Amino acid sequence: MQAKLRVATQRQTEMVDITRQIQEALAGRTSGTGVCHVYVPHTTAGVTINEAADPDVVIDLLTALDRLVPRTAAYRHAEGNADAHIKTALVGTSAHVPVDNGRLVLGTWQGIFLCEFDGPRVREVWLRMLAEH
Amino acid sequence: MQAKLRVATQRQTEMVDITRQIQEALAGRTSGTGVCHVYVPHTTAGVTINEAADPDVVIDLLTALDRLVPRTAAYRHAEGNADAHIKTALVGTSAHVPVDNGRLVLGTWQGIFLCEFDGPRVREVWLRMLAEH
Amino acid sequence: MQAKLRVATQRQTEMVDITRQIQEALAGRTSGTGVCHVYVPHTTAGVTINEAADPDVVIDLLTALDRLVPRTAAYRHAEGNADAHIKTALVGTSAHVPVDNGRLVLGTWQGIFLCEFDGPRVREVWLRMLAEH
Repeated sequence: MQAKLRVATQRQTEMVDITRQIQEALAGRTSGTGVCHVYVPHTTAGVTINEAADPDVVIDLLTALDRLVPRTAAYRHAEGNADAHIKTALVGTSAHVPVDNGRLVLGTWQGIFLCEFDGPRVREVWLRMLAEH
Repeated sequence: MQAKLRVATQRQTEMVDITRQIQEALAGRTSGTGVCHVYVPHTTAGVTINEAADPDVVIDLLTALDRLVPRTAAYRHAEGNADAHIKTALVGTSAHVPVDNGRLVLGTWQGIFLCEFDGPRVREVWLRMLAEH
Repeated sequence: MQAKLRVATQRQTEMVDITRQIQEALAGRTSGTGVCHVYVPHTTAGVTINEAADPDVVIDLLTALDRLVPRTAAYRHAEGNADAHIKTALVGTSAHVPVDNGRLVLGTWQGIFLCEFDGPRVREVWLRMLAEH
């Protein structure tokens, strides 16, 4: 099972809940059990797992990251998005989610979020199903 | 191999060394070689790998996270634990540890820690053994 | 496929692009398809994926981490490298990269970096190829 998702972000910084989109890609391609590797092939966007019930949670997360890593500072990188690269390092570029019989097995409150730090852009998310022993 | 651990945390923020508990779960269920996927199905607790020899190391880590992400601030999330969600995004919800013949293969100083950011609670840790090529 | 790389770092904090070294280890040992588990068995060094084109990007990342986690503060850990442990928790000790027919499949701008936070030292990086369903 390999799949590529496309996610069109709408803002400069944004957390996009991609749980359903991942689930749909899995459902069409695997009935397997294992761990889904969710990979973001970008350097100014990442992926994280956090609360999907209250949308304020990921807004607080974006605000905290903005405070810790300001958009403007004495950065050397000349493209104006050094903060986005740093935030990507803090959240990471992959997530790994258990799958049973083709269904994501998340905790009650968990969702999978694409973390856009330099949008809006069209982003890719690559999925692979890892096999269990 | 799939196993679920239960970890009862004792404080609001706490690093619990779960290395031995994971090793015991592995020993009972696999003689295999691969990578153990350690997954925390929560949004206010994570998992990390760090020094297990000097307990001051993870206390310093908790203190640093408290400084970077204060418990009280102008958060939108109304449950009073927005900081715990943000800290979870910084450390992550999964760790991946090499396993040889059913035994964790960690670096000399490494241990696996459940990171409690909104306790005390009973937390779950889910384990899966990923197969190697 | 299992391989161990050795990386001799040159400075106290440094981002070393190890993409080519990983690719060479893969090429000699596998023609497979899956996900490469890149593991750092240390507690004062980590691994991350970020931009490899402009070397200023990872310098900005090191500078930001130094600002967020100063070398000197009221740490309890007596070895003088508490900051390195904390930075390791922020970037993580493993990365996971898609592989097709023995070749790393990274995004256009991505490279894999060993993150040295308490060098110079000789570091190890352990590689395992995870199998896909």
